[in-house]
Amino acid sequence: MLSRYLPILNWAPSYSRETFSADASAAIIVTIMLIPQSLAYALLAGLPPEVGLYASIAPLVIYTFFGTSMTLAVGPVAVASLMTASAIGELTSRGTPEYIGAAIVLALLSGGILVAMGVARMGFLSNFLSHPVISGFITASAIIIAFGQLKHILGFNIEGHTLLELGAGLATGLSTTNIATLVVGGAAIGFLVWSRRSLAPLLVRRGLSTNLANSLSKAAPVLAVIVTTLTVWLLELQTAGVSIVGEVPRGLPAPKLPPFDADLWGSLFLPALIIGVVGYVETISVAQTLAAKRRERIDPDQELIALGASNIGAAVSGGFPVTGGFSRSVVNFDAGARTPAAGAFTAVGIALATVFLTPLLYFLPKATLAATILVAVLSLIDLQGIKQTWAYSKSDFTAMIGTIFGTLIFGVEVGIAVGVLSSLVLFLWRTSRPHFAVVGRVPGTEHYRNIQRHSVETTPGVLSIRVDESLYFPNARFLEDTINDAVSMDPEIRDVVLMCSAVNFIDASALESLEQIDHRLKDAGIRLHLSEVKGPVLDRLNRSSFVTDLSGEVFLSQFEADQSLAQRAKAKLG
Amino acid sequence: MLSRYLPILNWAPSYSRETFSADASAAIIVTIMLIPQSLAYALLAGLPPEVGLYASIAPLVIYTFFGTSMTLAVGPVAVASLMTASAIGELTSRGTPEYIGAAIVLALLSGGILVAMGVARMGFLSNFLSHPVISGFITASAIIIAFGQLKHILGFNIEGHTLLELGAGLATGLSTTNIATLVVGGAAIGFLVWSRRSLAPLLVRRGLSTNLANSLSKAAPVLAVIVTTLTVWLLELQTAGVSIVGEVPRGLPAPKLPPFDADLWGSLFLPALIIGVVGYVETISVAQTLAAKRRERIDPDQELIALGASNIGAAVSGGFPVTGGFSRSVVNFDAGARTPAAGAFTAVGIALATVFLTPLLYFLPKATLAATILVAVLSLIDLQGIKQTWAYSKSDFTAMIGTIFGTLIFGVEVGIAVGVLSSLVLFLWRTSRPHFAVVGRVPGTEHYRNIQRHSVETTPGVLSIRVDESLYFPNARFLEDTINDAVSMDPEIRDVVLMCSAVNFIDASALESLEQIDHRLKDAGIRLHLSEVKGPVLDRLNRSSFVTDLSGEVFLSQFEADQSLAQRAKAKLG
Repeated sequence: MLSRYLPILNWAPSYSRETFSADASAAIIVTIMLIPQSLAYALLAGLPPEVGLYASIAPLVIYTFFGTSMTLAVGPVAVASLMTASAIGELTSRGTPEYIGAAIVLALLSGGILVAMGVARMGFLSNFLSHPVISGFITASAIIIAFGQLKHILGFNIEGHTLLELGAGLATGLSTTNIATLVVGGAAIGFLVWSRRSLAPLLVRRGLSTNLANSLSKAAPVLAVIVTTLTVWLLELQTAGVSIVGEVPRGLPAPKLPPFDADLWGSLFLPALIIGVVGYVETISVAQTLAAKRRERIDPDQELIALGASNIGAAVSGGFPVTGGFSRSVVNFDAGARTPAAGAFTAVGIALATVFLTPLLYFLPKATLAATILVAVLSLIDLQGIKQTWAYSKSDFTAMIGTIFGTLIFGVEVGIAVGVLSSLVLFLWRTSRPHFAVVGRVPGTEHYRNIQRHSVETTPGVLSIRVDESLYFPNARFLEDTINDAVSMDPEIRDVVLMCSAVNFIDASALESLEQIDHRLKDAGIRLHLSEVKGPVLDRLNRSSFVTDLSGEVFLSQFEADQSLAQRAKAKLG
Repeated sequence: MLSRYLPILNWAPSYSRETFSADASAAIIVTIMLIPQSLAYALLAGLPPEVGLYASIAPLVIYTFFGTSMTLAVGPVAVASLMTASAIGELTSRGTPEYIGAAIVLALLSGGILVAMGVARMGFLSNFLSHPVISGFITASAIIIAFGQLKHILGFNIEGHTLLELGAGLATGLSTTNIATLVVGGAAIGFLVWSRRSLAPLLVRRGLSTNLANSLSKAAPVLAVIVTTLTVWLLELQTAGVSIVGEVPRGLPAPKLPPFDADLWGSLFLPALIIGVVGYVETISVAQTLAAKRRERIDPDQELIALGASNIGAAVSGGFPVTGGFSRSVVNFDAGARTPAAGAFTAVGIALATVFLTPLLYFLPKATLAATILVAVLSLIDLQGIKQTWAYSKSDFTAMIGTIFGTLIFGVEVGIAVGVLSSLVLFLWRTSRPHFAVVGRVPGTEHYRNIQRHSVETTPGVLSIRVDESLYFPNARFLEDTINDAVSMDPEIRDVVLMCSAVNFIDASALESLEQIDHRLKDAGIRLHLSEVKGPVLDRLNRSSFVTDLSGEVFLSQFEADQSLAQRAKAKLG
């Protein structure tokens, strides 16, 4: 029981020197990768750079205790950082203590919501976010992030969280472009794009193993940071208008809780929920992918608790919302991490950097961090996915494109809302018109098939309808309409048989519809029968008085129903 | 085409003298019934009594042109009146011209929304309201309405739209009860309750036909109105504190449109949507029930247009939101109405009453109208339905009880929201965990069944899973979890076969999950196969690259899959 909520108890007892050395060497590589990322995503969220470092210490240690993935690396990520900026940017202005305070509250609320969902086993709620919605949302977010970073590359300031706001700011500010900043930023982008494609193959040709070459090429941002920082320092580019990071406080934050403020917490609740759930969906997806490679098991409900606790840890240590990151987790996996202890070791690395390396960041140009973000998020734009969804399903495509335009035009929260609502509405639309068929007997057999597709025999006065869907509230009224229509077409009908072979479930709405249908048919002198009702469905029906009140009978098979009704008709005539 | 949007064109050409006399005599009975109801529901909505009469004229004429039900009677009803009072009571205070104006705007918006939904064929959206939610909502509304009317019976004023507000007002006001009012109201209630149960049987014993006796007994409220009005006039009870209706303007309202006010319209949009959709659901249910008795056909999308146009008509003629009423439609049906012309004749009757009878209403005590409402809504409280839903389905019961308490404690809008959201969440919860089974071959057959229920044979290294549900976003992640878990349990597995006999549909989310599952299994050295994929599902899959990229094969039957994989395993060993 205890080890379910503290999965560390499962692997820590057998922790060996060998596991330690694997975890420690993975941690070194992840630390090097994470330092520029943490600074960059803090910048993206509109926060001071040290907040990014803080968010990469406590959450990693906490995940080590609570996480069920052996290789997931949590920390600040691009999309959550954009959502943070969007949520708190509406409440207060950047650079104020209130802004930092709001980011901390956002992490705390988001963490609290995730832990509560985990304890209540409510992970299924994240299913409201369908794949096309998530994919469209990430694509749109990546476009907004990329546009938003252009200001740092071009060297002037614009505000905004939607494409229109950013585009307008960009258009008016373009004439004030700072050339020195553009050169530094452009060079960093060029190097990062080149290194993504060509650095690893180059290293392989120089004799490194593919794995090592891949891992090392992920350190390209660090190289860009070092080179551009030295360049600014040597050429004194800050006097030419290149924005630099400046003074970064040394040392670790003292743990403390944000003060309670009902108004602030209330207005951050919904953004916290969205950030938490979107982050969770991404986290689970990364964790499952890596776990499957080694046939390891992920507990989705425990991951809610682990990610939630990590976010609470981020809040208590002055950070901002964190999520399981895809690229850093892959690096961690490829670098040979064996247990979540690698995360704790990474945290030690970041903590050491926070204490000892922060003075070296003084001359780091913001354009380099922006270049890091820009190159990272471009790979999140999934045009291929949009095309494939278009080809596969027009209704999924509608939800996806709604999410993309909602996000681009109105911002992240509206985008998610549009996505969730449109996928629910489209789902309801599809399921509210289930496939149904009037059936008849294939001559010489006991099989019943669609009369429109097969040449079949029907019994006069008997209408047999097969519905290919469970009966529940989205299609309950459809059933009423369908049977009413069918009966109003043919005054000869005396018996209606509902063939339930494809019905896995009948909810209270459909039960009431069936009762209504039975009453109405009875008024018109028609009896309603059921056939081929599955065991569990009939068990449930027997909890109501439906079967006893039914004007007709419940037949085991459609064949039996047909035979029995035909004989009775003959007996009457005879 | 034209006759689809104007169903009057279908029946008017064959209108005969005989049909006229049937419709006209039904109209007389409905008119008598509708006069006190119209006054009473205007009172319930917080509006002057003549507004109730106005809402019973133009809407009925318009429904005659647009409606597809031969016997539906539209007009003010209890639940919509409560919702009107609740929606506009928050914005402005009773008795002001703004209050009446807001009610008119509410009818206009509600009508516009319904017409738009009808033209766009969006009637399926009303499926969001499941039967238990509607039933719970009506029960809770009836309780609130009944409590709200007690003030008129007891003769003091209280405000409020929730049970707590009304209860508090009632408790403090009880000592100021007006005895004369209580006597009049109590007598009216007693008479109405008695007439509901005993008047029709009494008339039958006196030799009337059952049908006529039933119709006449519906006129009991008119008798109560006449007797109590005369009593007040003769005994001058208004001087003893009995509230009377007072001056009612004579004559018909001049048609006019309410002025546009963005703020007001914006804040009334959501209430208008809810009133429209709830009213539509009730209307359709009544219309279907009556149509089925004569094997007539209802067009649900056209009914949206008809009800919407009726509401626009109500707005233009100074009325408030209208709906198809259950009891008046049944009376119309029982009294022999044959076409919607009966509605137009009823409108003429109400118009004549508005012109000639309004002076007679001066001494009508409000307590009588309150008694009419109280007795009418008590029959809407469906405790039996709550009990039956509890027995049938705990999750439907949860949605129902959430709606009831949401409505009673927080008001009608919160109640509906709680109901819709909770039924969606509960639906998602259920469908996110579909039934699945690991299957094996029943010895000597080609049938595959659940290994936990049947003694079956399995092929070593092959895992066959049957999922008893379509694959789509609510359960896409469940599928990933299930297969990941199953594979992590047994290191011997080399092939996974997904048996798709119960899969009617695979959406883009599930497609992506299948691709993920395939990638992950491939990484673990396992191949994924499908078997028994239905034709339409496979057609759709072939629009993507899934089948060509699949590590394994798509088998026609589970038996074929099993045989083929077993042979291959043997070949490898040999």
